[in-house]
Amino acid sequence: MIKRRRVAVIGAGFMGSMHAGIFAGMVGSELAAIVDPNRALAEAVAAKAPGCRVYDSHQALLAGERDLDLVSICTPDNLHLAPAVAVAEAGINVFVEKPISSKVEDAKAIIAACEAAKVKLGVGYLLRFDPRYAAAKELMTSGRIGEPIHIYARRNSARTEGPKRYGGKLPLALHVTVHDVDMVLWMLEGQQPVSVYAQQTDKLLGSSGTQDSIAAIVRFSGGTVVNFESAWSLPSGARHMIDARMELIGTDGSFEVQCGDSGLYFASDETSREIDTQHWPLLNGRIDGDLARQLGGLIDWLDGAAMPIATGREALRSLELTLAMMQSAESGEIVRLG
Amino acid sequence: MIKRRRVAVIGAGFMGSMHAGIFAGMVGSELAAIVDPNRALAEAVAAKAPGCRVYDSHQALLAGERDLDLVSICTPDNLHLAPAVAVAEAGINVFVEKPISSKVEDAKAIIAACEAAKVKLGVGYLLRFDPRYAAAKELMTSGRIGEPIHIYARRNSARTEGPKRYGGKLPLALHVTVHDVDMVLWMLEGQQPVSVYAQQTDKLLGSSGTQDSIAAIVRFSGGTVVNFESAWSLPSGARHMIDARMELIGTDGSFEVQCGDSGLYFASDETSREIDTQHWPLLNGRIDGDLARQLGGLIDWLDGAAMPIATGREALRSLELTLAMMQSAESGEIVRLG
Amino acid sequence: MIKRRRVAVIGAGFMGSMHAGIFAGMVGSELAAIVDPNRALAEAVAAKAPGCRVYDSHQALLAGERDLDLVSICTPDNLHLAPAVAVAEAGINVFVEKPISSKVEDAKAIIAACEAAKVKLGVGYLLRFDPRYAAAKELMTSGRIGEPIHIYARRNSARTEGPKRYGGKLPLALHVTVHDVDMVLWMLEGQQPVSVYAQQTDKLLGSSGTQDSIAAIVRFSGGTVVNFESAWSLPSGARHMIDARMELIGTDGSFEVQCGDSGLYFASDETSREIDTQHWPLLNGRIDGDLARQLGGLIDWLDGAAMPIATGREALRSLELTLAMMQSAESGEIVRLG
Amino acid sequence: MIKRRRVAVIGAGFMGSMHAGIFAGMVGSELAAIVDPNRALAEAVAAKAPGCRVYDSHQALLAGERDLDLVSICTPDNLHLAPAVAVAEAGINVFVEKPISSKVEDAKAIIAACEAAKVKLGVGYLLRFDPRYAAAKELMTSGRIGEPIHIYARRNSARTEGPKRYGGKLPLALHVTVHDVDMVLWMLEGQQPVSVYAQQTDKLLGSSGTQDSIAAIVRFSGGTVVNFESAWSLPSGARHMIDARMELIGTDGSFEVQCGDSGLYFASDETSREIDTQHWPLLNGRIDGDLARQLGGLIDWLDGAAMPIATGREALRSLELTLAMMQSAESGEIVRLG
Repeated sequence: MIKRRRVAVIGAGFMGSMHAGIFAGMVGSELAAIVDPNRALAEAVAAKAPGCRVYDSHQALLAGERDLDLVSICTPDNLHLAPAVAVAEAGINVFVEKPISSKVEDAKAIIAACEAAKVKLGVGYLLRFDPRYAAAKELMTSGRIGEPIHIYARRNSARTEGPKRYGGKLPLALHVTVHDVDMVLWMLEGQQPVSVYAQQTDKLLGSSGTQDSIAAIVRFSGGTVVNFESAWSLPSGARHMIDARMELIGTDGSFEVQCGDSGLYFASDETSREIDTQHWPLLNGRIDGDLARQLGGLIDWLDGAAMPIATGREALRSLELTLAMMQSAESGEIVRLG
Repeated sequence: MIKRRRVAVIGAGFMGSMHAGIFAGMVGSELAAIVDPNRALAEAVAAKAPGCRVYDSHQALLAGERDLDLVSICTPDNLHLAPAVAVAEAGINVFVEKPISSKVEDAKAIIAACEAAKVKLGVGYLLRFDPRYAAAKELMTSGRIGEPIHIYARRNSARTEGPKRYGGKLPLALHVTVHDVDMVLWMLEGQQPVSVYAQQTDKLLGSSGTQDSIAAIVRFSGGTVVNFESAWSLPSGARHMIDARMELIGTDGSFEVQCGDSGLYFASDETSREIDTQHWPLLNGRIDGDLARQLGGLIDWLDGAAMPIATGREALRSLELTLAMMQSAESGEIVRLG
Repeated sequence: MIKRRRVAVIGAGFMGSMHAGIFAGMVGSELAAIVDPNRALAEAVAAKAPGCRVYDSHQALLAGERDLDLVSICTPDNLHLAPAVAVAEAGINVFVEKPISSKVEDAKAIIAACEAAKVKLGVGYLLRFDPRYAAAKELMTSGRIGEPIHIYARRNSARTEGPKRYGGKLPLALHVTVHDVDMVLWMLEGQQPVSVYAQQTDKLLGSSGTQDSIAAIVRFSGGTVVNFESAWSLPSGARHMIDARMELIGTDGSFEVQCGDSGLYFASDETSREIDTQHWPLLNGRIDGDLARQLGGLIDWLDGAAMPIATGREALRSLELTLAMMQSAESGEIVRLG
Repeated sequence: MIKRRRVAVIGAGFMGSMHAGIFAGMVGSELAAIVDPNRALAEAVAAKAPGCRVYDSHQALLAGERDLDLVSICTPDNLHLAPAVAVAEAGINVFVEKPISSKVEDAKAIIAACEAAKVKLGVGYLLRFDPRYAAAKELMTSGRIGEPIHIYARRNSARTEGPKRYGGKLPLALHVTVHDVDMVLWMLEGQQPVSVYAQQTDKLLGSSGTQDSIAAIVRFSGGTVVNFESAWSLPSGARHMIDARMELIGTDGSFEVQCGDSGLYFASDETSREIDTQHWPLLNGRIDGDLARQLGGLIDWLDGAAMPIATGREALRSLELTLAMMQSAESGEIVRLG
């Protein structure tokens, strides 16, 4: 006999509603509560999960619920701090969507609160649970790649996807590139970034407050050079949902992760699209893919299993490097680290 | 609180040991027992699953275990009948690796035993749990494809993979093409095959008792034409583990499932390979991919969830059509069905 | 000093105007005349080639021109006979667009006329001059492939391309599949087709007098099995102009020709397309690609160079096998040859 | 009647012998002479071209030949200056393999000599004659792309190709990246590079005097950002001969040039390779592809046709930007231009 983990989700938007659906549907967890100041959003989520209660603030959640095992925080990036600290202080494990925060000091405060309360803190870098990246990491640890020499990490998508979903208010790097930053730091275990240079463009999306593209070159302490590229300005007719790649050349071998061609291509008289089979495909009526695998792994991690959930300290490193890229892109100067 | 389903696996070979590992590792199940006449094989499996008992026959299993929820049968195809019937008669749910059997009469006997005993019978067509095929099926049921016109279904692999693993004693179609037959029947719900024509070759593998390639054209009752192609004779240096594709043209849209390029390519000075990220990749120390997703879905299906587990009757249809292909390939004549 | 070959083109439609432009622009040839009953079409072509005269029939051409080295016949398939025979009888070399004709007796009459007049006869199978197919042929003749076992040959395109250009009046196999038939016969030198089975569909294009798709399996005298597939019914939004592939498994090696992804992909907010870089791209103001390379090779062939121009007898073989496919597809029966 | 252009080639190495073979085989040219201090190399080339004379220095060539229309200089990069100037001063048109030189002052001296002598000067950037890049350039000039925002340009190959052929003595950027620099400058007509930042690695090939990889970010005057990446350190088993790509995002459209998958893949029990169908495939006994197309275009250009042959001044720009990359990679500092 096993006990289902009781989970609450804060934020009933795009990511939060997916988290809620997954926690409600998994064998190892149940969705105890959903929180959103927009009550209609929260109730729509709760309607699909029998027994799920609705709250309009994290304070109300913590006042109303007992025996929560985990709270997943899916609020906007700049609103992670208050709920994360409150949840930690209530002695409940914390999961925060990536990036951990948009500010280093907030990230540090979240980490400190969780460490003080001796609760677990995980951050939602779902690519660690993607079969491609995870098997690439196995290649690295198996020694078949040898010493890493050079990495290229791309993440491009259509101008109608991210910029539309996030209202154009988010910096591209902090929303998109940060995924690859986490992956690179994960692959290059033991190396530290020593210098960062970046350039960005904003011809198309500058008027809506974000960037079209960013390119960055980071040199690491072990001599590995990493070339990052992100753009959410592909034409809206482009067939790729997310043209993501990671290509690593090592002394003994190389690997190429390729996620742009998803393995399922659909065409009609009007459209030509790769269909998501990776991040959060809806299969057999359930959200599947990396996100579901990550949240399943998260439950196992709470139970003590070794799982590659990104920790708060790892997420802080990703944040710091991403912010350095942004600083370089804005100033036009090299940023030296460490 | 949830009860873990108690599962036994019969057969500790390639597939059986993977089943055992997955059932042992999932939240919803526990591995109660492993059965193999080769005791060393069985004990190696049991060593990784605390509490798992070892038996050398299905009779011993059924005599020794109580309260089993499911027995998974991973014996060679021609040895499915006896254990499946015995398990069913013991009132335990049955899962059989694909194909359900190599003979129609055995398949029918298994189905009859399960129906008589009112136990569930599932057959291991894992592609139904592959994100690519499953999302393609969603496209079909969503109506975005319209009426299906033409399908191409390929499944090619290296001469060093299947023929080596299975000792060259298995017919190619019954081991390989049958996967695509199940997928096509699943996609073409409501249509019946009306004629089959096939040709095969055996220049390379004939001496070890199997075929190099088979090509078949099947016409269905609704006018859809399906072109099947399977070969397990690619050179051993070929980069694809399994170059599998399914491409369907409909009146309103088309889809292409592409599994050959797996999203992870590895090269060294000696090799050039797509790495399995689909069927049963080992991730974070666990078997993941379609097989794990299928067995997880199987547990949920036992619990009453709607899941696309292939039923015995569906598996009988796949078997019949595949045997008709083989009959045509051997005789050189068209086989008319129904 | 070299003499430019004097060439006339009969037919000023899609293919004829491209032939004319290429002959006018090459170093080794000049366009002496263009022939079309539609004088406006012919004059539009002539306007771009200084010194090119215009005729409205092949009779007028032969009456008006002296010293022609070659006449290229780009009339509709069923109108090749009369001009080809007349040109041959005038002692001028003949080039005919593929297929040589839509009827075996016409093809034979053209061949007989050219042989009687001792003029050269070439047929426009331009893939012999495609770098992919041509280098694949080199692999075959080099011995690196060994004995051929199995071939898959595909040629799919959008419902808006071929069926629109040719008014839907042409059989799919005779227009499209015939390219792959020629390639397969070229690759399988020394083997004869012994049996043909085909199935076709016409759900979408039947009302405009053509087929949606055809699949065929041909067995050859040496035991090689070939699986042909053609469809010109892909949705109009599909990114491929022509999704053509040829994959051959041999005893010692395999090759895959892949022309669907052309090496140049274009996307805008409205479209998502592979751009033609193969057949007849317009580069630097000139028609380039396979067609230009073929017509250049044709001039060299007239001058005595060994060139893989398809001969009349080769084109007759392609025609006969293609007609056998069509007969099988219409009757639903196996057609046995030879 | 047309006159064949009389051409001499200086240098009978890898590139020179290909130039010689192409000039000898084309309709519009004849190979008058081949020059190499290694007489055996030169004679081997001459043996295949009837009438071709052999010299061991450019001085001997110029003393011995009259009426040359063109001399193609295929000596090592640092030995372009003397023959180029001498040929120009003899009033003969000059073609130099890329890069024009390894030094800016040499490049300028070559340009000055050609301008003073009023002879044409072309430089061998063969990608301008590649169907993929050339058609991409047409997309740019057609306006379908709009204003360029961001470019990614890659050129990766195996550690056994370039470094082996060139003895590891050449800088990677000057031999490889310079191709993409020329392409980018060609695509971004009217824009000037304003800043360059690069990082390189040498873990693997440093001991043989070259780099493993280089990544560079260049900002242009119009605000376009270009991300260059080159590596000739892929494992020797990697399937790509040259994994070259150019991806450009514009305000109205995007394009992707992809040359890594060549359209012809070969596998055997020992190897897995994309076969060259692009640069200089041997087809029908002749060198074909970009190189042949470029040299054919060169002859037409001498005859007055508009052709995208890279001029000396264009080649100087490519050289300057490439040298700036190298300077940045060595110093670790941003290099500001113009």
